[in-house]
Amino acid sequence: MHKFFSPKSVAVIGAPSKTGPGALNNVENMLRYGYEGRIYPINPKAKEICGLKAYPSVLEIPELVDLATISVGRDRVLPLFEQCVQAGIKRVIIISQGFADADSLGAELQREIVDLARKNGVLVIGPNTLGVVNNFQNFTTGFVDLPRPEKFSKISLIAQTGLVQVASKEFAYKSWGKAIDIGNTANVDFVGALEYFADDPETEIIALHMEGMQRGREFLEIASKITPNKPIIVLKTGRSSGGAEAALSHTGSLVGENAVFDAAFKRAGIIRANDATELQDTLRALVCLKAMKGPKIAIVTVTGAAGIMAVDACEEEGLELAELPQGLSEKLKRGVPEWIHIGNPVDIWPVGMIGGDVPGAVGMAVTALLESPDVDGIMMIALAVNSPLHNDVVDLTEVVSEARRMAGNTKPIAIWPYADDKSFFPDLYEAIDGVASFRSPEQAVKGLSSCYKYHKLRNREIPSGKHFIIDRDKVDPLLERGRKQKVLAGEDALCLLNAFGIPVVRGSVAGNLEELETAASELDNPLVLKLSGSAFLHKSEWSGVKTGIETTVDLREAFREISESVFRIDPKLKIEAFQLQEQAFGKELLLGLKRDPQFGPVIACGMGGIYTEVFRDISREIVPIDRSVAKRMIESLKIYPLLKGVRGEVGVDMEALLNALERLSFLAVEIPDLLELDINPLLVSETGCRAVDARLLW
Amino acid sequence: MHKFFSPKSVAVIGAPSKTGPGALNNVENMLRYGYEGRIYPINPKAKEICGLKAYPSVLEIPELVDLATISVGRDRVLPLFEQCVQAGIKRVIIISQGFADADSLGAELQREIVDLARKNGVLVIGPNTLGVVNNFQNFTTGFVDLPRPEKFSKISLIAQTGLVQVASKEFAYKSWGKAIDIGNTANVDFVGALEYFADDPETEIIALHMEGMQRGREFLEIASKITPNKPIIVLKTGRSSGGAEAALSHTGSLVGENAVFDAAFKRAGIIRANDATELQDTLRALVCLKAMKGPKIAIVTVTGAAGIMAVDACEEEGLELAELPQGLSEKLKRGVPEWIHIGNPVDIWPVGMIGGDVPGAVGMAVTALLESPDVDGIMMIALAVNSPLHNDVVDLTEVVSEARRMAGNTKPIAIWPYADDKSFFPDLYEAIDGVASFRSPEQAVKGLSSCYKYHKLRNREIPSGKHFIIDRDKVDPLLERGRKQKVLAGEDALCLLNAFGIPVVRGSVAGNLEELETAASELDNPLVLKLSGSAFLHKSEWSGVKTGIETTVDLREAFREISESVFRIDPKLKIEAFQLQEQAFGKELLLGLKRDPQFGPVIACGMGGIYTEVFRDISREIVPIDRSVAKRMIESLKIYPLLKGVRGEVGVDMEALLNALERLSFLAVEIPDLLELDINPLLVSETGCRAVDARLLW
Repeated sequence: MHKFFSPKSVAVIGAPSKTGPGALNNVENMLRYGYEGRIYPINPKAKEICGLKAYPSVLEIPELVDLATISVGRDRVLPLFEQCVQAGIKRVIIISQGFADADSLGAELQREIVDLARKNGVLVIGPNTLGVVNNFQNFTTGFVDLPRPEKFSKISLIAQTGLVQVASKEFAYKSWGKAIDIGNTANVDFVGALEYFADDPETEIIALHMEGMQRGREFLEIASKITPNKPIIVLKTGRSSGGAEAALSHTGSLVGENAVFDAAFKRAGIIRANDATELQDTLRALVCLKAMKGPKIAIVTVTGAAGIMAVDACEEEGLELAELPQGLSEKLKRGVPEWIHIGNPVDIWPVGMIGGDVPGAVGMAVTALLESPDVDGIMMIALAVNSPLHNDVVDLTEVVSEARRMAGNTKPIAIWPYADDKSFFPDLYEAIDGVASFRSPEQAVKGLSSCYKYHKLRNREIPSGKHFIIDRDKVDPLLERGRKQKVLAGEDALCLLNAFGIPVVRGSVAGNLEELETAASELDNPLVLKLSGSAFLHKSEWSGVKTGIETTVDLREAFREISESVFRIDPKLKIEAFQLQEQAFGKELLLGLKRDPQFGPVIACGMGGIYTEVFRDISREIVPIDRSVAKRMIESLKIYPLLKGVRGEVGVDMEALLNALERLSFLAVEIPDLLELDINPLLVSETGCRAVDARLLW
Repeated sequence: MHKFFSPKSVAVIGAPSKTGPGALNNVENMLRYGYEGRIYPINPKAKEICGLKAYPSVLEIPELVDLATISVGRDRVLPLFEQCVQAGIKRVIIISQGFADADSLGAELQREIVDLARKNGVLVIGPNTLGVVNNFQNFTTGFVDLPRPEKFSKISLIAQTGLVQVASKEFAYKSWGKAIDIGNTANVDFVGALEYFADDPETEIIALHMEGMQRGREFLEIASKITPNKPIIVLKTGRSSGGAEAALSHTGSLVGENAVFDAAFKRAGIIRANDATELQDTLRALVCLKAMKGPKIAIVTVTGAAGIMAVDACEEEGLELAELPQGLSEKLKRGVPEWIHIGNPVDIWPVGMIGGDVPGAVGMAVTALLESPDVDGIMMIALAVNSPLHNDVVDLTEVVSEARRMAGNTKPIAIWPYADDKSFFPDLYEAIDGVASFRSPEQAVKGLSSCYKYHKLRNREIPSGKHFIIDRDKVDPLLERGRKQKVLAGEDALCLLNAFGIPVVRGSVAGNLEELETAASELDNPLVLKLSGSAFLHKSEWSGVKTGIETTVDLREAFREISESVFRIDPKLKIEAFQLQEQAFGKELLLGLKRDPQFGPVIACGMGGIYTEVFRDISREIVPIDRSVAKRMIESLKIYPLLKGVRGEVGVDMEALLNALERLSFLAVEIPDLLELDINPLLVSETGCRAVDARLLW
């Protein structure tokens, strides 16, 4: 991969003979960008391009180049790629469009190229790509003419479009150091690119622009290894794209594609930015501020109104207002009227203005806050008016630098410089270590929040699922049946869960009243009688559930009522079986699994019952999970307070619930071909939890 | 008010004799800003300030000035204000801090000033203010030296801080035309300022920065009158500030201060911006794009990836992707390979690049989309690289202007110009009518969304509550008792509701078993027996509710069980009464009222039962409401699909529910001193709705 970014020589296949406006000539661009390696334009119709000798084919050039780029009509790509292979070239960037991005013929062409590449050990970027940019080496393969940025960060970008390269200032902090457009990801994909950047010393932060994903498990693995050392930020677009519609189960519809990506990013320790602005702000924060070790923020402001905005933003981000260090208030208030109040936000203006020394007051406050162990980060609101009358309060670089020196630490300081004139401003405070300026108070606070997020992510534990002993003799025949039928429901499904150690309500299936009465004698009252069988998927539509059965009389009446109700709705339908269960009580939860084509099984848990779809109060994690992840899943639910118990009410048996989740994760690992699984409801009370109904799909 | 903004003469009381850096001299600022009226610096220690003759007091100046400003220590403000009154000055801006913003002494001083002002017909802005800015007249009273903006909009600002004046470019689109900092709002408040801007021809849009509010009802009235003609955008800060904690009822805690502001803004047709960036983007959209008449968006993009981002943003904003006009795809695809696909987003790059005419393709698309009746607005993604090699595709002003001319309408076009160099760009497309440029694809889409919001707001109907006939003989004694006890609960509360025509379950209260049995004979089974009385607020904690009572035996057992349970918990407690009710079935809703100190009664409805606090699925409106607002309240609930009926299930009796809401709104108007009211639960089924329990607080 390295030589994609730092080639000593490049063959540019399909270099246009035309140059200048509208030519989109990548040889011209390479030269304008300052590339100092050897360029071989390949164009059978030209003698010379941009002053360089042009060759009719790669087979004619005098050396084995490190890299070839191809930009010709899609029909001519394959033969030219074959020439590259023949010439022994090991790296090719296919810029042309019209492959898997276009139609089935294009997809077929792409497959042929990839096959050929694999057989010959050639790495291919694209098709449908702008290729790479490496600002450390003045190198670009793009056909859009961009000025080489004078300043850029050690951020590397992996994108599925050239857009984020072209608009690097819109997305990056300053600009990317390196960028790769993996286009159709035919051969070099996210995993391949991540492997390179993982060890690249010129990469300190990795940004991803992602539309889709293959090799999800490998992606999780490499990303999980990277994030403790280098932050990864992703802008995943295409949130609205389908996937969830086709789901067969409840869990299926609740674990849509977007939610799976969220779970995957969480598992890998990746920070997700929701849009371009968030991506830029997060990168700015992580480049300039690094990690922040806790949630406690102190706000220093020259205007009370903006302090309130910052407090609002802190609340939104789940950050806390720090306690001010002892004595700071007294020190600041020395010599100013008694009515001036100092709190957090520290409103420095009245003190500074009446005391006649705004910079002094700011310096005093920032130093004390940096030194305080109760403050994890500072949000500072500063004036940035370009007026000779306000020089004293506008550039506080010296004051902040001095506070930094005094405190001797690099706690993050996020600054919102509010101003009418920013032309002179953006880099003012950023020369100081651990300081970043943002465009709004909210963005500054979000920046701090990102730093705290990264602190938590880099220190997280990667869960490995627990192994449980299961009764193979019970499990295997059920699995066999399930795989054959593609579905396992009712008592069979509960049996299987039970064999995996997930508690279920006791029950049995019977075809007639006599058998039901026998079954009832072995179960604990009260009981529930339900319709069984595939004809009755939504039992409530058939009035097919009767609860509270205490006696044989009750059972007979329930039997009669259900039978009559079915007859009324469809006189021809024969009820093949009834399910008789012990009636369970408790709060209705839903537990489930769904196999994602990329990331494998996803485990879900949340609110069950009629409100499931309405509130979608569900947490999702990639399998496997361990106990602490299971705990996080439960605790992140909105209904968690009800599970824990409110108003002195006893909470549910949390141990039983966590155990069920861990075992369900184990089940997912053990039955890798399972498509979806629903436990709905799982009734959970203070004395345990029990699955009442379940369905598995293959 | 007009002369606050356009005074012919100003007395500047407390003008510092010092000028230059750090002096914060507002006389100096006025002059630098280009003010051409007469300035009288008032400073007994100076002879001359900034070349102007200084006077010892306003009593000495040679004319009756239009305006005086005061900036001295708070202790000296009152006597100087008295001099202004004595001099007959009718407009005073008190810049000094330390009044109601500081402590009780300051609040008292402020009260004295306001009293004096009222008595003498003097209008006061402040205290604690930067005063006013009027860019139409080069006038400012601020002590921060800002360059007068060359370009500004017909946006007027009413703020509770000088921050948004100082940082006008951060908040406004370009700059405010006029701004007023109403500071502590002692005398001139939001209502007063709105009254002025309502008729001001130099004001087309009004922006508000709001921390708190007095005179809420008057505010609603004037704002409601303005919004059909001029949009009002508010940035309400201090979202986290309390109010809700102290609530006594369920409704109280569900209708927090922030939610009331939301309801109030909705009622007045005001658009709420959540932060500085949103405020700026909304203003930019409304200044440049005006209203958008429908939700259907067409996206024209030179990059597919950004098209996807725009689609994500549309989905988030509830906008729809428009159908492309017939024939556009065919026209665009003429002469390019078959595999190029044209949809919405219209990805113009492959067509334009291969066809060799990007501007032509853009022009063709934009014209057709503007002309199409199925398109309400256009989002355009354009390249803005500052390179001589891309002149042809970078500045498409001519193309867009021509499309505009051809189509002959002003449908909004929101552009995201993505670029490495924006220095030359911001105003490029904005010379064209109905076009605005934004800093990200998401902001562009939000801009269109704001225009659609304003279209709906300006065309909304203002509800007026219906009048119902009530039985005064029933209502009055209950009201008397409620007002005396400060609370009305149980059967009393239900009786009152019933008298207002809100259906309640039938029931009665009795002290002993015998009476209960008599009562039971007049009610329809099944029945519910409950503890009654103020000792048992949370009945479930006392096991004080028994349902499903069908027979006298059941009733006796229930009586015994409840009595025993109470005895077990507190042997000394005497049960004064039991409540016996018909048992109702249906979905649990909560209906409520809460009187807001500013905006008056707020009506709430939403999910009842144990999940109420967890999901807070509540809609809120300012009283009065009419049928259509009641409908909107129900439809905006997350549980609305369950109320309407899902999976072929019959929905609830919507008419009954709407009727109950309208009558509750009427009740709120009729009992203006009511503090809070809870109907929890209201059980609603396909056959009607009935209040099961209720509580009213005075």
